[in-house]
Amino acid sequence: MSLVVFGTIALDDVKTPSGVRKDMLGGSAAHFSMSARLFSNIHLVGVVGKDFLQAHLELFKRKKINIESLRIVHGPSFHWEGEYKQEDFNTALTRATELGVLVDYVPQITNMQRNIKNLFLANYDAEIQMKMLQLMKNPHLVGLDSMNLWIELQKKPLIKLIKKVNLFVLNDGEARMLTGETNLIKAIKALKRMGPQMIILKKGEHGVVFLTDQFMFSFPAYPVEKVVDPTGAGDTFAGGVMGYLSSVKKINQTTLKKAAIYATVLSSFNVESFGMSKTQNLTLVEVNKRAKKFIKYISPPGK
Amino acid sequence: MSLVVFGTIALDDVKTPSGVRKDMLGGSAAHFSMSARLFSNIHLVGVVGKDFLQAHLELFKRKKINIESLRIVHGPSFHWEGEYKQEDFNTALTRATELGVLVDYVPQITNMQRNIKNLFLANYDAEIQMKMLQLMKNPHLVGLDSMNLWIELQKKPLIKLIKKVNLFVLNDGEARMLTGETNLIKAIKALKRMGPQMIILKKGEHGVVFLTDQFMFSFPAYPVEKVVDPTGAGDTFAGGVMGYLSSVKKINQTTLKKAAIYATVLSSFNVESFGMSKTQNLTLVEVNKRAKKFIKYISPPGK
Repeated sequence: MSLVVFGTIALDDVKTPSGVRKDMLGGSAAHFSMSARLFSNIHLVGVVGKDFLQAHLELFKRKKINIESLRIVHGPSFHWEGEYKQEDFNTALTRATELGVLVDYVPQITNMQRNIKNLFLANYDAEIQMKMLQLMKNPHLVGLDSMNLWIELQKKPLIKLIKKVNLFVLNDGEARMLTGETNLIKAIKALKRMGPQMIILKKGEHGVVFLTDQFMFSFPAYPVEKVVDPTGAGDTFAGGVMGYLSSVKKINQTTLKKAAIYATVLSSFNVESFGMSKTQNLTLVEVNKRAKKFIKYISPPGK
Repeated sequence: MSLVVFGTIALDDVKTPSGVRKDMLGGSAAHFSMSARLFSNIHLVGVVGKDFLQAHLELFKRKKINIESLRIVHGPSFHWEGEYKQEDFNTALTRATELGVLVDYVPQITNMQRNIKNLFLANYDAEIQMKMLQLMKNPHLVGLDSMNLWIELQKKPLIKLIKKVNLFVLNDGEARMLTGETNLIKAIKALKRMGPQMIILKKGEHGVVFLTDQFMFSFPAYPVEKVVDPTGAGDTFAGGVMGYLSSVKKINQTTLKKAAIYATVLSSFNVESFGMSKTQNLTLVEVNKRAKKFIKYISPPGK
């Protein structure tokens, strides 16, 4: 039950109607790890600069996230500055992006890590994601995330990569962009035909749709009344799915549905506070408690 | 198990990417009736002009919808012309609206109908909806729908009316508009505080949220791949809810969830064809068959 995640580790400055935070721990792989760690042993792969906050690195260690292959190099860390407006909490307005040390970075992992069976390629340049995939010897479960930027700039390498993964997770806007289909059910089926055995369509406050060769299912989101900071909700969701699936013997309808429920609950915690303030302190006990409530919320009537 | 529905009965001209149809049977109360008839005896209250198509009136009769209180008067029938674009199938672009005979109409019903226990006030001028409500002697279950137009033009009479109903059904845009809350969970709770025991928030392709004093639940929409004409989907949904609830002894979590499932399935049939082409021919057997598939689609994992 080990899982390698490759993606960004960032310093985030975020402004939302609830306030402002600077230099928070952020990035796709960081949010993913903080969620997936509840189910599997996480090996975090990525790069930060010498300016990265020691406290953030300490947090990874405290949470038993393996950072052997988290490089610390000269130069500024990847930095993201974003804002959310009350009127549209689902869309981040990017105020600034400094790639910093990401520019020249190529992933490297240990020999031991090359043998791990589960890999998640969090949002990143598609060609570098492919390089990361090629480092692995014989992965059984490979998950992939992407974003609008790479769909625009790197459609070809991305499509090549999509063919090689087992699980592709993306949001509704990205699905429409990549497939050209406005109807989301058509879009998810078009994505399925691109190669992966499993497609997960995230719809933010409207929940998710899962599609495999054998079945399709959908859950609404957990009803969160006070969204404080949605940054990383999608990565937290992916972390819940991949973390749980890496911990089970068999991926079938039951385990995929459980993964979806854990992922939904984890991302509901994520959006309720800035950065990882809530997810970093979560235990499975609290997650299971909310999962029970959520199951009641979505259950069809008994006979 | 009788149910009075008051609302518009229209001639609809609709253009969608699938084609164009003229003079179809439409209107809030008509769509509602075609769905609710599967569960309860429907008494349709409204007005049409002498130009109304005989075939549409015959259809009501054939479907055992009581039209004793459907007035046929001099003047043109209410006429709606709308278009849906591929890019945004959830929003109808109104090309023309002719109120015609609606202008001077005030609802009248028979003495027998005044004693019926279930009433639905489909989308209409809020002051006339109030007049209709006052005609009833002692209704047990009163449902209400409205739309953006009345929220803008008649907010005060509408709020007065909302206080007097048991069940208020509206879509996400209307909920945000009426409450000023962008977060839908906050919005539905704000609506609850306005008076009704039950609030139903419709989110189109994203499903529904139900809120009562005792519980809240949410279901996604049925996965429809080919939307042909979404006109009347909301009224069809309301018809499923009210029709089913009027037929049961007790309204509780189980029966409300069943109502939500029937309503979801019925509106999925509605959007798959122009006007009521599909819903008018439906039997409970077909509805139950799709309901079973839907329950599988939304069920959480077993233990």
